[in-house]
Amino acid sequence: MNKQQLFENIKRKKSFLCVGLDIDIKKIPTHLLNEEDPIFAFNKIIVDSTADLCVAYKPNLAFYESLGIQGWSAFEKTVRYIKENYPDQFIIADAKRGDIGNTSEMYARSFFEHLDIDSVTVAPYMGEDSVKPFLVYPGKWVIVLGLTSNKGSQDFQFTADASGERLFEKVMRISQTWATDDQMMFVVGATQGKLFTDVRKIAPDHFLLVPGVGAQGGSLQDVAKYGMNKQCGLLVNSSRGIIYADKSENFGIAARAESKKIQEQMEALLQERSLI
Amino acid sequence: MNKQQLFENIKRKKSFLCVGLDIDIKKIPTHLLNEEDPIFAFNKIIVDSTADLCVAYKPNLAFYESLGIQGWSAFEKTVRYIKENYPDQFIIADAKRGDIGNTSEMYARSFFEHLDIDSVTVAPYMGEDSVKPFLVYPGKWVIVLGLTSNKGSQDFQFTADASGERLFEKVMRISQTWATDDQMMFVVGATQGKLFTDVRKIAPDHFLLVPGVGAQGGSLQDVAKYGMNKQCGLLVNSSRGIIYADKSENFGIAARAESKKIQEQMEALLQERSLI
Repeated sequence: MNKQQLFENIKRKKSFLCVGLDIDIKKIPTHLLNEEDPIFAFNKIIVDSTADLCVAYKPNLAFYESLGIQGWSAFEKTVRYIKENYPDQFIIADAKRGDIGNTSEMYARSFFEHLDIDSVTVAPYMGEDSVKPFLVYPGKWVIVLGLTSNKGSQDFQFTADASGERLFEKVMRISQTWATDDQMMFVVGATQGKLFTDVRKIAPDHFLLVPGVGAQGGSLQDVAKYGMNKQCGLLVNSSRGIIYADKSENFGIAARAESKKIQEQMEALLQERSLI
Repeated sequence: MNKQQLFENIKRKKSFLCVGLDIDIKKIPTHLLNEEDPIFAFNKIIVDSTADLCVAYKPNLAFYESLGIQGWSAFEKTVRYIKENYPDQFIIADAKRGDIGNTSEMYARSFFEHLDIDSVTVAPYMGEDSVKPFLVYPGKWVIVLGLTSNKGSQDFQFTADASGERLFEKVMRISQTWATDDQMMFVVGATQGKLFTDVRKIAPDHFLLVPGVGAQGGSLQDVAKYGMNKQCGLLVNSSRGIIYADKSENFGIAARAESKKIQEQMEALLQERSLI
């Protein structure tokens, strides 16, 4: 999928919502535990309940890996289910990978060849050769951690060099020289508020993947106000607020209701900017 | 395993070698492809051929994940095989993880509860709350990326702040306030040579996990010269140089011979320092 196609999906669905599939087996409705694959059964209902209201799904690998083979299997089944039934969805493997060249190649093979996922989140600490192997696949994306949503983002990401440039700014400035904005996005946490203005100075045209709305306390209005560009340029993720909106057998209905609420807010924000 | 136990193993085996199990199915001897689980069959022979010559094994997750469920299964079997047959080995899941708190918790659960691995490599970019969840398991270790062995280490790790402190120095200075040196190590690439002197100013007592000897060109002599401390303080990894020393049915013998060569060099270096 290229940037224009992603924008077309956003306009058509009036939504830039990404649903985070961070499935903790300890938190899903107990009646699903009798299923052969409870995690996949849960995801299938979440996806079927929300697919017309969002443009992307973001399974977080940690949640699947923590269950070993069983979790990895649920992850693969989920990706395949979305690909087959909702081919217009942009799938993000939230893996935050970053390793030396030959290792990054293996990760790229895993996500882009083995599973045909659209994008992978990568950590920038190890620099160019840890990111480049992901860029050889046409139509596939890397999403580089820029400014994250967590408290620990303060520890290193704001460290300024002698010229005053902060690490997150340097990461975004340097890494965008490795690929076009048709292959690279940045993670910028919703909790960073007005800093989106600084981010847009460095990356005016890139899509930003924005976690941290909902459970982490970020504001959708602020993100749109400071971060939206002329092609929207935002994929705003919500995980816990949607998938655990209800813990009974009605979790699909509740997830849909919650997604609908966010989608309507997004529709209004897109209209304000005359993008739809 | 605590630091003293690790040092005792090093003295007893006269080795601070870590064998990297970075298994690429395209590179293993072809006769193994008829096995039910070729990767595990390969690892079993490598481990049986080298266990008395090394103190640690480091499976690199990327290589297993790239094969999906099959790879994940081989990874789990390998870890269990080492645990059961060579319980004195320190197992490092080279995963380079780093995510927000609740996600890091899932990774910690995966590696430390589900698989009883001794340590996990973590990326520091997201700061304290991405590392802390790994530290709640007694006897388990986090190995924080400090100064990596690859070319891309130049991109961000050397960025100096206004006071002249470089990012890798800040990462090592700050992160060691999160845990004792009985729970934390740092990755420092063998290719960094004299910079080990700078690393030892910040982290005199920590163990360092040192990749980059062999295929990547780092020198074991330089690493020992600038990096060894009074408890050795080094785990030097070799992957490709050992596991692909021979691609015929004799790969186990060749891996042993290569490991023996490195072990003997290490023995001499430990003797020079009067550590054994």
